[in-house]
Amino acid sequence: MIKQVLIGFLCGAAILTVGILIGHYGITQSSSTVVWVQDVVKDVDESFIQKFLSEVDNIQIQENLKELTKMPHMATTAGDEQTVQIMLKRWQDPKTGLDHAWREEYSVYLSFPDPKNPNKVTVVGPGDTALHTVREKEKVYTSDQADPEVVQPYAAYSPAGHPKGKLVYANQGTPSDYQLLNNTVDLRGTIAITRYGGAGRGAKAINAAPYGVVGVLVYTDPLDINDGLMSDNETYPHSWYLPPSGVERGSFKSHYGDMLTPYLAAKEETYRIPVENITGIPPIPIQPIGFEDAYRLICELGGDAAPAAWQGAFNCTYNFGGPGFKPTSVFKNSDVKMDIYNYEEVKNSSNVMGVIRGSAEPDRYVIYGNHRDSWVHGAIDPSSGTSVMLELTRVLGTMVKQGQWRPRRSIIFGSWGAEEFGLIGSTEYTEQYFTKLSERTVAYINVDIAVFANATLRASAMPSVQNVIFTAAKQVNAPGLDSTSVYDNWIHYSNRSSTTHGTIPRVGYLSGAGSDYAAFVHYLGITSMDLAYTYDRSKTNARIYPVYHTAYDTFDYASKFIDPGFFSHQAVARTAGNVLIRLADSLVLPINCSDYAESLEDYLNTAVNLYQHQLKDWNISMEPLKRAVASFRSAATHLDQVIRTSDLANETPLKVRRINDQLMLLDRAFLNPLAFPDKRAYRHVIWASSSAGKPTFPGLADAYANAESSGQASDWDKVHYHLSVLTQAIEGAAHTLTDVI
Amino acid sequence: MIKQVLIGFLCGAAILTVGILIGHYGITQSSSTVVWVQDVVKDVDESFIQKFLSEVDNIQIQENLKELTKMPHMATTAGDEQTVQIMLKRWQDPKTGLDHAWREEYSVYLSFPDPKNPNKVTVVGPGDTALHTVREKEKVYTSDQADPEVVQPYAAYSPAGHPKGKLVYANQGTPSDYQLLNNTVDLRGTIAITRYGGAGRGAKAINAAPYGVVGVLVYTDPLDINDGLMSDNETYPHSWYLPPSGVERGSFKSHYGDMLTPYLAAKEETYRIPVENITGIPPIPIQPIGFEDAYRLICELGGDAAPAAWQGAFNCTYNFGGPGFKPTSVFKNSDVKMDIYNYEEVKNSSNVMGVIRGSAEPDRYVIYGNHRDSWVHGAIDPSSGTSVMLELTRVLGTMVKQGQWRPRRSIIFGSWGAEEFGLIGSTEYTEQYFTKLSERTVAYINVDIAVFANATLRASAMPSVQNVIFTAAKQVNAPGLDSTSVYDNWIHYSNRSSTTHGTIPRVGYLSGAGSDYAAFVHYLGITSMDLAYTYDRSKTNARIYPVYHTAYDTFDYASKFIDPGFFSHQAVARTAGNVLIRLADSLVLPINCSDYAESLEDYLNTAVNLYQHQLKDWNISMEPLKRAVASFRSAATHLDQVIRTSDLANETPLKVRRINDQLMLLDRAFLNPLAFPDKRAYRHVIWASSSAGKPTFPGLADAYANAESSGQASDWDKVHYHLSVLTQAIEGAAHTLTDVI
Repeated sequence: MIKQVLIGFLCGAAILTVGILIGHYGITQSSSTVVWVQDVVKDVDESFIQKFLSEVDNIQIQENLKELTKMPHMATTAGDEQTVQIMLKRWQDPKTGLDHAWREEYSVYLSFPDPKNPNKVTVVGPGDTALHTVREKEKVYTSDQADPEVVQPYAAYSPAGHPKGKLVYANQGTPSDYQLLNNTVDLRGTIAITRYGGAGRGAKAINAAPYGVVGVLVYTDPLDINDGLMSDNETYPHSWYLPPSGVERGSFKSHYGDMLTPYLAAKEETYRIPVENITGIPPIPIQPIGFEDAYRLICELGGDAAPAAWQGAFNCTYNFGGPGFKPTSVFKNSDVKMDIYNYEEVKNSSNVMGVIRGSAEPDRYVIYGNHRDSWVHGAIDPSSGTSVMLELTRVLGTMVKQGQWRPRRSIIFGSWGAEEFGLIGSTEYTEQYFTKLSERTVAYINVDIAVFANATLRASAMPSVQNVIFTAAKQVNAPGLDSTSVYDNWIHYSNRSSTTHGTIPRVGYLSGAGSDYAAFVHYLGITSMDLAYTYDRSKTNARIYPVYHTAYDTFDYASKFIDPGFFSHQAVARTAGNVLIRLADSLVLPINCSDYAESLEDYLNTAVNLYQHQLKDWNISMEPLKRAVASFRSAATHLDQVIRTSDLANETPLKVRRINDQLMLLDRAFLNPLAFPDKRAYRHVIWASSSAGKPTFPGLADAYANAESSGQASDWDKVHYHLSVLTQAIEGAAHTLTDVI
Repeated sequence: MIKQVLIGFLCGAAILTVGILIGHYGITQSSSTVVWVQDVVKDVDESFIQKFLSEVDNIQIQENLKELTKMPHMATTAGDEQTVQIMLKRWQDPKTGLDHAWREEYSVYLSFPDPKNPNKVTVVGPGDTALHTVREKEKVYTSDQADPEVVQPYAAYSPAGHPKGKLVYANQGTPSDYQLLNNTVDLRGTIAITRYGGAGRGAKAINAAPYGVVGVLVYTDPLDINDGLMSDNETYPHSWYLPPSGVERGSFKSHYGDMLTPYLAAKEETYRIPVENITGIPPIPIQPIGFEDAYRLICELGGDAAPAAWQGAFNCTYNFGGPGFKPTSVFKNSDVKMDIYNYEEVKNSSNVMGVIRGSAEPDRYVIYGNHRDSWVHGAIDPSSGTSVMLELTRVLGTMVKQGQWRPRRSIIFGSWGAEEFGLIGSTEYTEQYFTKLSERTVAYINVDIAVFANATLRASAMPSVQNVIFTAAKQVNAPGLDSTSVYDNWIHYSNRSSTTHGTIPRVGYLSGAGSDYAAFVHYLGITSMDLAYTYDRSKTNARIYPVYHTAYDTFDYASKFIDPGFFSHQAVARTAGNVLIRLADSLVLPINCSDYAESLEDYLNTAVNLYQHQLKDWNISMEPLKRAVASFRSAATHLDQVIRTSDLANETPLKVRRINDQLMLLDRAFLNPLAFPDKRAYRHVIWASSSAGKPTFPGLADAYANAESSGQASDWDKVHYHLSVLTQAIEGAAHTLTDVI
């Protein structure tokens, strides 16, 4: 009987099981949808993130850096091509590579010194006898500096020319610096020596020319970079400080992207504007020199003493210049002569692109990028970032190749070319794929210099992604601090008080064009971020890591002085990778519109405090702007609530897609291609660059400053116009966040 | 034993059933998704379309028209407000209305005649004695013309003024007309009489001013509108022809949208440009008159006989003017004096908006619109279209209210204000909701004048939607032809040969700004169409229906002469409604990118034939453009194949969404806000307006014509530049159609 019951029970169970199986899989509707139903509701997998974090390896990053920095890899040189090959090899590796990787070339306008006629700066006495010649190459401390491919220090896009004149000291070369100097010294025919900082590189020459200055020198003052240290035995290779002969190279143009093809991708047959129509480049020759030589020149200058704020670290008084040298100087009556042989050339520069195809939403892109080109070996700039990127792609690529993981959305990796010449590769990419990228890109993550120093994380971003950065940073251990997260370490170094969140780490804004995020932010309006590890500001005043853009930015330097053990690199890779995975995998995009509202409110409050009173006198009301920001806040609150109260994993996948589209496209609502008539590459009305230097809406701040200075009614009209542009952009953004219909 | 087997079998069956039920409904995943799985794969329902077609009622349309035309409803008048109330009442009706309807107001810059100082045109002898006074109001034939709200004929945006001078005849007032006339007659100080056609209304004055002409009259020649007929007993109310006193009113400005707030929505507090900065309006007074008066003036003119092409239907020779009248005329030595009292005013104009919320994709919009304002009673323009729209919303609204139907996507109905003044309501709407509409709008359907005449359908559209228009037109019976479809009737009247489809009806392009589609096409880049029933061109040469913009465009006229029985209105409602439902309900959007490719190829072939030879001389290659068009074709073919070979009803709904996004956003890829520096409201590089009059890419055609005429290298540079703009737009569009990653 027991046996029969047992048999009956087993039979019944078997039949039931068959029934369940038929019911679950056998009925068409369910069975055919089951496959994709799982797929479309897939969310970020925390255990996968843990796995990713554990796989990110500091030694791999170190080895990447070693390989990338074997030779100088300035844009379009043989060394650059070598790095192209490294990227392609890695990303096309069948076991650790991406789904697909390729190269994209642009023909771009670059500027080089002539290796056969090196640029020269000399102090010349009567009859042009050289009394002092500025060093042509940086001093060799390691074999790196002896590499014949090290490019002579120069100012890219400085015109060639042979100006000669009495030397003057013009501090940082800002408009007010030249104005002040001109009050004392007749600047016509002079050569001005300036120090880095305060004004853009090219601006130092652009600001000088109207005063009749015929040539400009620029150097890095030890005060600004070396915490005052300047002797050979205190600097690299003895410390991280800049050696006396080190020279910061750089691009001296003002606008980002290829200059001959504005707003068009620089393909071979693209129309190019005449060279004479280029704007924003030095009108007179300019050349960077080391502080060793600057010391010789400045300390011999005659004339009145420059103001205290102009004084640097040299053990002499910085005088304006007589113009020219002191009567007591060996250089007395001498001129400074510049012989600049730079030439411009259209050359092919490559981006290397790689993708991992998304599973559920391949038409949504998370883009992660960094430039590949350096000035010399570029261990920190940019290869620290590239080493990190290669480690990310190794870890993620391996998981993809092993079938362990595929992101919900597509990931695009970009290794940009010719960034050092003015963000060229990334800009041309955004111009070529403008529509596709605008429509589909969820976010752009930029990790250029991954590690400036090993104290703390630093992030600049649209406010809507601060939270995902925080989430990621909380899951990563701070280098060298076992029980402290990157987040907790960061908040200790830099924080602010948020009305919503209390004390949180301070995230900067991407209002400038300092790296390849520029075109993504300002031209495409894509939610972006820039991540790095950086200084303890209580320990150094260095403007940037001291050997920036010099021949000393080498693997040796990076591994000895910036990040021994590569633990900060690892922390950045883990944090940025974590953010990347969350953006790619989350069911609901980790983009928070209420955090955007808080930033708009901050900007509004500042604007009201600064401008409202005087605007009233001109009959310009700020009420519409206030209402717009309030609309935005209320729409953001509403959308947050919809997200919070929806069971999105079980509702139609078109609902979460709809919400994600609202989040993805939020920044696009702030674009207005007509907002800034003088700088069409800036279309984002919240984050455009600004010269007014106020922490508020950039176009409003600039228009206001301009009107206040001119006092003209037509300039106040421009303030009113921009207020309307801004108001409608914010209202328009609010419209996109409310219920879709 | 049998019993036991039976019991066993029954038990087994019961257990199996329980299992099946558990398996099918009891496992969370399937049961909770079933609801939305049905919803997301919903496709267009042909039986619903049949039901819709059968419900569209000609008598309802007739009654709509009767109600809408009870009084004149010029923008912002009491009559306009009355139509606002009609729309709101209908669309808010709980049984036949939409989900939601509301009004949106804009403060827009309009122009009116002064009712207290009517505009006057007189022939004055010495001492300003009036020898002839032009009729101030149109002759009364029905009570409609006697309505005190009938606005006096005037030229909106003509400046006020009191010019006086000798009369000349300037044909259509094109640049070449004035040039030719100026060869014979000194135009300084003259008043020019012109006929409608050939040039835009405002252009007749803009073109005249440089020659010193001080005032312009414009009339409708019976040759152009009445097939030559001009006597009182041959015209309305005896026929559809324009009575001798009828006057076409109109907007005389060149740019669309509110003139004081370009590219910004004209909200109350929006910044307004100074009135003196307005461009594109008549610099000298202009006034329209009837041909009755024009006859008196023209047939008395002295001077040489004008060329044959300038002659109209009057039984006299059209002379240039001495300047002034013949010595034999009673008017000899007389001047023509204009007293124009028009004034401008910022007034509130309303759009009425109504929506049906979409079920599966509420964040996708199909927009259907027409303006509501007329010049007088506007039975044809625009109330024929509004009557059709109201019938569509009645039929669809009723089904929604009864729970019988809800579209897959949202439908937005727009009843635009102040179109007659220059497409103002629709333009302000696109400016206010720019981002939201750009991101979400699938298509815009414009039905302004629904029935010009009752011979055949006429459509202008982006080529990608010709096919859905064809599909719809095949399902609707042609009015008065029981066994012939609208499609078959149409192909008989107007056809072309397609490389893909053979002989098909000819669909025009939306390259102008003739109705409210302008901002959707040119500013937003939204796939659009404009539908109407129109003439048998073998039966009339009328430039447009003869009483256009006159006081005779009444219900009486429409029901007697344009569409007795309202069957053509019904056919338009059925066709447009069918298209609307297909765009709103289809699983895969009925937008065909290969048909777009065919149009691009046509344009390319024309461009190559016209320009390639001479461009080679200037070293400008057309090869990149050819490659771009080929890329587009190949990408379109590929996407078509993906659509054809996918089982989209059973695959993830995110796949069909992805494809639909590609189709929806196709036209957006052709936008470039910097493409036309002189006309920023035109951003669509394929369909922008053009003055060159060539059936090819408009910017290329205009740039080429300009370079050819000036011969300057810098103008050939502009041709090259525009070629690059065009090439990259087409390449960019192709990128959006290929595999998304």
